[in-house]
This record gives sequence, C-alpha cells and structure tokens, in this order.
Amino acid sequence: MPLTYRAATSADLPFMVALITADDVSGTPTDDPAAPNAPHYEQALAAIATDPNQALYIVELAGAPVGTFQLTFIPGIMRKGMWRGLIESVHVSPEQRNKGFGKQMMRWALERCRERGCGMVQLTSNKKRLDAHRFYRTLGFEQSHEGFKLFL
Amino acid sequence: MPLTYRAATSADLPFMVALITADDVSGTPTDDPAAPNAPHYEQALAAIATDPNQALYIVELAGAPVGTFQLTFIPGIMRKGMWRGLIESVHVSPEQRNKGFGKQMMRWALERCRERGCGMVQLTSNKKRLDAHRFYRTLGFEQSHEGFKLFL
Repeated sequence: MPLTYRAATSADLPFMVALITADDVSGTPTDDPAAPNAPHYEQALAAIATDPNQALYIVELAGAPVGTFQLTFIPGIMRKGMWRGLIESVHVSPEQRNKGFGKQMMRWALERCRERGCGMVQLTSNKKRLDAHRFYRTLGFEQSHEGFKLFL
Repeated sequence: MPLTYRAATSADLPFMVALITADDVSGTPTDDPAAPNAPHYEQALAAIATDPNQALYIVELAGAPVGTFQLTFIPGIMRKGMWRGLIESVHVSPEQRNKGFGKQMMRWALERCRERGCGMVQLTSNKKRLDAHRFYRTLGFEQSHEGFKLFL
C-alpha cells in the first residue's frame, strides 16, 4: 500500500507532539503532549503554513498517520545561486518502524526538493542516533559535516 | 574599531563570490568569480532579499568588507514551537583572519537570532575544518550532531 502525503494541520498536532516527545533524546524534553493545541504549537504551525519556503508533512498509510517531516527551501549564493533543501523533524511512529516507510518518506522528500530546484539537501542527526546515520548513508547522503547547536 | 553590518546587495557579489570560491574545500569548486553578477547570483540575492526569514549580511570595517554570513529563521513544532536560526556561508577575508572578527560576527549573529525569538541556533561545518570546529565550540556551540549532505 502506498504512503500518501499532505500538509499538517491543527488536527495533526496531537500526533506530532506525541511523536516528537517520544523521540526526544535531549534528556530534558520540553514538549507537552497533553496540550498539543496550545497557542505556541498553533502559532508555529501557522508560521510554517504561511511561509512559501516551509512545508510540514503528515505521511499516511490507508488514511492513518505514520510519520512526519519538515522541509525548508533555502536560497544561497554558493554554487551559482544553488538552493538547498533542509530536512528537519523526521519521525516515524514507533509501531510503524522497520517497514521501509522512512526510506519511502525520504525519497519522496528528495523529489520535492528536486522539483523546487534544489541542488543539494542537508540534515543533521544527533550523534547518539547511530541507526539514523546508517539510514541516511543508505539513502546516498554523505556524512561530511559536523553539526553544531547552541541554545539561546 | 567596531564592525558594522548591512544587507548584501548586487555590488557585494564580486566580494562574496571571490571569498566563497577561495574557501571552497569541496575539491570541485563550481563558482565563477569572473562573473559574479551573472543572473544565477543576482536571482539568488533577490530570493534572499524578498524572504523575510532570510538575511545575508556584509560585515565591514571602516567601510571595507571583511566578511559575510547568511541567517535563516525556521519555525518548528518541537520544543513548544521553538524557532531556530540557521547560520550558513560564514566567511572572513583571508587577510582579515585571526583578528577576532569571526567571533564578533558570530556573537552579533546570535543576537539577531535572539531578537527574532529563536531558542536555538544551528550550523554545520565540513569535517575537514578542524579550526572552525574549535572556533564554534569556543562560542558555546555543542558539537552534538552529524551533518549529512546529498547533491541532487
């Protein structure tokens, strides 16, 4: 059965916030799956929906959500004005893992980036997620960079 | 003397494209410093200028350019709708290095992200650039992620 893709809406926030919280490896999770439609989440969703260079997807199997991810399209000067796609917040429901859905999702995401004229796609993955690193290498990603984060 | 900051314009493309080319560690540089005002560069600059979540800066010392960097502001669901700042294309002129300008630039960039309400700032750096890694750690960045790139 093929996966289907659509833009995330308010009705998807319970699914997304629960999944984000379950996957949090930070040690200090700050999300609140008990209040997934709180104003901070709704405002973030609206900011994404109104930005033509943002896309937040819900991935479905037979009408039920199995995953989510976000794309950001970034113009830049380097490589003759090459656009980049940034993939963030990739999650698959725990009970739907190891079925190849992640790979299908990411191939679909790469196609969207190609359609948008991106010459490159980039993402970062926490150093603890060794399975994810193998997964992205299998998809053809080069593990060429160090990823730095600073909380303000 | 303090550094000053302003949005990049077409007149800055010769400076930026020369600097990007000089810093390219890819082994297969694709930029053309002989044609810095070619349509692909002008179009990229226009795409950045018209996107309220993009900012491309020229950093000056006494009216002369010494560096450049790009900020992208990204809304997201995680961490209660936290915005992130993404820093890309950080360059300092070869003759202006080791004077502390990079540190000043990045502290100024972090302030802009804070002003825009970002809760986190992220960037990636090629694994070959060990000096850059030390530099970002000194600024307080955590080297917590692996950075993946895939050319389309």
